[in-house]
Amino acid sequence: MKKTIIVFSGDLDRVMAAFIIANGAAAMGDEVTMFFTFWGLNVLRKPEKVKVKKSFLQALFGWMMPRGADRLGISKMNFGGLGARMMKIVMKQQNVTPLTELIASAREQGIKMIACTMSMDVMGIRKEELIDGLEFAGVATYLAEADEANVNLFI
Amino acid sequence: MKKTIIVFSGDLDRVMAAFIIANGAAAMGDEVTMFFTFWGLNVLRKPEKVKVKKSFLQALFGWMMPRGADRLGISKMNFGGLGARMMKIVMKQQNVTPLTELIASAREQGIKMIACTMSMDVMGIRKEELIDGLEFAGVATYLAEADEANVNLFI
Amino acid sequence: MKKTIIVFSGDLDRVMAAFIIANGAAAMGDEVTMFFTFWGLNVLRKPEKVKVKKSFLQALFGWMMPRGADRLGISKMNFGGLGARMMKIVMKQQNVTPLTELIASAREQGIKMIACTMSMDVMGIRKEELIDGLEFAGVATYLAEADEANVNLFI
Repeated sequence: MKKTIIVFSGDLDRVMAAFIIANGAAAMGDEVTMFFTFWGLNVLRKPEKVKVKKSFLQALFGWMMPRGADRLGISKMNFGGLGARMMKIVMKQQNVTPLTELIASAREQGIKMIACTMSMDVMGIRKEELIDGLEFAGVATYLAEADEANVNLFI
Repeated sequence: MKKTIIVFSGDLDRVMAAFIIANGAAAMGDEVTMFFTFWGLNVLRKPEKVKVKKSFLQALFGWMMPRGADRLGISKMNFGGLGARMMKIVMKQQNVTPLTELIASAREQGIKMIACTMSMDVMGIRKEELIDGLEFAGVATYLAEADEANVNLFI
Repeated sequence: MKKTIIVFSGDLDRVMAAFIIANGAAAMGDEVTMFFTFWGLNVLRKPEKVKVKKSFLQALFGWMMPRGADRLGISKMNFGGLGARMMKIVMKQQNVTPLTELIASAREQGIKMIACTMSMDVMGIRKEELIDGLEFAGVATYLAEADEANVNLFI
């Protein structure tokens, strides 16, 4: 049965958990919808800088927030990125699939990834700044998906 | 169908998400119950100081925690409230309904807002310190509501 | 009906919430499965140091993370453990069951506690370091449990 996950967090550890659950469910034959909102949008940003018009505050937010899955920090003991780097090294040693590959795998498995348009407006993030293969929608779409699902998580 | 949301967090960004989902669901005809616990209780505090008897530690907690929806910080990059102020400015520019109005709208739409009595005891928060229109209950009530719902989130 | 809770957080306040909900549901006759992952594994660590082989980074993680339920910090205003101590004092004054007793009660009530094996690998945590009465499994087991449940929370 369908699963939905709201990815509100932009922390590497929480986002990893979201994608591990999502990919696991898809592998077991479930439909999965991931809804990225607020800090979770950072996961979907392209790593390169994209020229778009923003207000001053939106530009500031954009500049302060990590650009893409490879630059996320961890939610505890990050120490300016050191913790995230340590965690990535240990994950590699333990053959845990890295986040960028989990995202690619999610796409290949047909997991629906929706970027929250209201959050995009607030954060000043434009479609051109996000990776390909996304859908764009708001809370009504999320609720319609959740109504069809039997597991709905907020991460 | 019914939705329940546990509002554990007292961070402006997470609480906004909770109310946007709750109001969205109510607008689509769903019954919604929000259960405020721990830091989430701060959302419900009246902005003005209310004289009530507290133990020393409870008074200290009360003094350190934000009084009401208008004073919440954001979960990341808050910088002593600067981040929250910036986010409110951007939200206003983007015509996002502010939190205080989302709360009023939740009440008008008949969303059930329950304050967790055990958390109130721990935090030393009295009914007189909270906004009107709340119900007061514990985990058994939450579980009974969740049993009737098809979407249950912990935020 | 069955409930599942993913305990991702290792913060005292969030973990307390998880166990209060879990014990409440079990008391009402529900089957409950708790799935401990990432920081949530710290909840299950034995308080004493256990000699096991670890890589340098795993040893470092193990050393930096709290050993067991009694040493967890709170998610806000922890101030190097002071906040957690204050919260425990207030909880005692208010006759709230302490976390260690909530865990014991969960075990007595037959709540299934699963430690996430992938997280154990990453964090370098061995079975010998964890308290008794646990099961060990991965995301597929979690998903199978969640499919049978009507309330699934991520904490």
